[in-house]
Amino acid sequence: MKHQDLIFSNDVASQLDALVEKYNPSKLFVLVDANTRELVLPQLEGALVLENASIITINAGDVNKNIESLTYIWNQLVEGGATRKSMLINLGGGVITDIGGFAGATFKRGIRFINIPTTLLSAVDAAVGGKTGINFYGFKNEIGAFCEAEAVIISTRFLATLSNEELLSGYAEMLKHGLISNADIYNRLFSNDVVNIEAEDMLQLLRESVMVKKRVVEEDPTEKGIRRALNLGHTAGHAFESLALQRNKPIPHGYAVAWGLVVELVLSHMHLQFPSNELTRLATYIYDNYGAFNITCDDYQALIEFMRHDKKNDSANEINFTMLKNVGDIHIDCIASEEDIKTAFDIYRDFMHI
Amino acid sequence: MKHQDLIFSNDVASQLDALVEKYNPSKLFVLVDANTRELVLPQLEGALVLENASIITINAGDVNKNIESLTYIWNQLVEGGATRKSMLINLGGGVITDIGGFAGATFKRGIRFINIPTTLLSAVDAAVGGKTGINFYGFKNEIGAFCEAEAVIISTRFLATLSNEELLSGYAEMLKHGLISNADIYNRLFSNDVVNIEAEDMLQLLRESVMVKKRVVEEDPTEKGIRRALNLGHTAGHAFESLALQRNKPIPHGYAVAWGLVVELVLSHMHLQFPSNELTRLATYIYDNYGAFNITCDDYQALIEFMRHDKKNDSANEINFTMLKNVGDIHIDCIASEEDIKTAFDIYRDFMHI
Repeated sequence: MKHQDLIFSNDVASQLDALVEKYNPSKLFVLVDANTRELVLPQLEGALVLENASIITINAGDVNKNIESLTYIWNQLVEGGATRKSMLINLGGGVITDIGGFAGATFKRGIRFINIPTTLLSAVDAAVGGKTGINFYGFKNEIGAFCEAEAVIISTRFLATLSNEELLSGYAEMLKHGLISNADIYNRLFSNDVVNIEAEDMLQLLRESVMVKKRVVEEDPTEKGIRRALNLGHTAGHAFESLALQRNKPIPHGYAVAWGLVVELVLSHMHLQFPSNELTRLATYIYDNYGAFNITCDDYQALIEFMRHDKKNDSANEINFTMLKNVGDIHIDCIASEEDIKTAFDIYRDFMHI
Repeated sequence: MKHQDLIFSNDVASQLDALVEKYNPSKLFVLVDANTRELVLPQLEGALVLENASIITINAGDVNKNIESLTYIWNQLVEGGATRKSMLINLGGGVITDIGGFAGATFKRGIRFINIPTTLLSAVDAAVGGKTGINFYGFKNEIGAFCEAEAVIISTRFLATLSNEELLSGYAEMLKHGLISNADIYNRLFSNDVVNIEAEDMLQLLRESVMVKKRVVEEDPTEKGIRRALNLGHTAGHAFESLALQRNKPIPHGYAVAWGLVVELVLSHMHLQFPSNELTRLATYIYDNYGAFNITCDDYQALIEFMRHDKKNDSANEINFTMLKNVGDIHIDCIASEEDIKTAFDIYRDFMHI
């Protein structure tokens, strides 16, 4: 895997100047959405390199992570005279780093790009790891490529622009990274109040969390094995997301992961004796901070069908989970029966008081 | 670089069956164009694995190597129920292996694909080396990815469906591979009559030629250095192609390369003393077999402008060539002045009797 400059700093403008000087691109492009153009770009005024950059703006929201926006970005690169030595800065949340990364990975068969995530979720999850792509034909990330950003600048500088909901959404992925790392990192996450934490303290937590992901990805960049550890909470989480969409009441990705973690740690307890006190601590924390995603027995079969169609399954007949024997003790490719999954939903509902 | 099964055989059906058995995909898709569907697919009747394959057909021709065809292929993969474990067979010329390779490289962030080139040009050039992509916004291969086929089956089985012009077009790339390899391989190319050669003899020449490219690509898969050796003849060649397009009289790619080789060996002679007897031998062979591409002094400036905009140039002010000191003695990143290029055009015209 190629070397990546992974920078943790709240002095984003200076870091960006230094990176651009280092890579010396023939031309600089900045991809933003309508929100980051208005709220974040002005905060980077100090970056001298942006004075001559071309700004490419797309509409905000996951619904715009599509082939039309991608084609528009490619168009703007051509019209702006981009060459193989040009560079793209992706300034935004996961939609921007995903689609901008894919545009960069494929323009002239690949130009350099830098990610500057502006949400907690994209800082901890989307900006690192090389998964780029767009939604297609109603499927999330159906088209894409594995391609690492040349550099990522991670800061807590822009978190003030986020709602509590967005902060909690990102924090769920940090809890997941804690669970697959070690008790030290994991425990620290419980001693903070995510919506009132100091910027520098959050930056330190972010650094630990991102490095967990980076180590896993370096070991297995194209998800043949251990990278599946990062799917903890996501098999059930994606099913919750899909059900919520079906109900026309979408839920934030991180919330879905939080609830998914509860379900999958219940399964871990059933299959691998994941400690019940740890399970209870997490479930209580999730309920206290995220509330509950409401399901009844009548939803179980639909949720199981969603899980069955998850692209992580090698065969349509199996449902594949990452499970834990304890914090940091990861078992990938665990198969659970429908009966076990239904039992786990029952216990999830007990924890969620529904 | 990942291992690639590179198979030289005229028993394509059996080889394909064996490969599919080896990779055991969840589902098999075959990409063809209207021509290869009619002329080539029936010749693979013996392949048992094709009985359950889904056929995806696009229109033939470089003009259809575009975002619409790409989107159509992605669509067909989704609708056909392709998973990450599915496999795509690209059966056709360079258009099919380029666009099918890109579709495979990006569907669900990458599924396996096999190339079965059906033209001499795609066998010797397009099917191996991992350059995939589409034309975009009027530029050739503007969007794409470096992604090697899992396997390539090279045969001379389908060459009977080709015109003499198509055979000669492919042979020009073989001459180029000869020039950048060694005198043995290069000399053998002059002792054959390309339009009347036996299938087995051609398969042997093809094997030598493809292995030249494969070795270069393995050394430098993403074209940072020595892979530029493969650009020999292409800086001038692409300019000839562009000029011909401007005249509304397009020329086959291989013909453009043949004439481009003459120009660039003249430059090699001027800059690096490439032997004049070798230069004369090649120029005579090209003239005898390919005829001449007609240019006058009035075209020189336009040709130079086309060269200046070649994506191989690091800067818009320099014109970059691969040159030879002798057969197999490669010098990449050679800069030639406008004056030298004009002199080379003069000498090219002498060789071409115009």
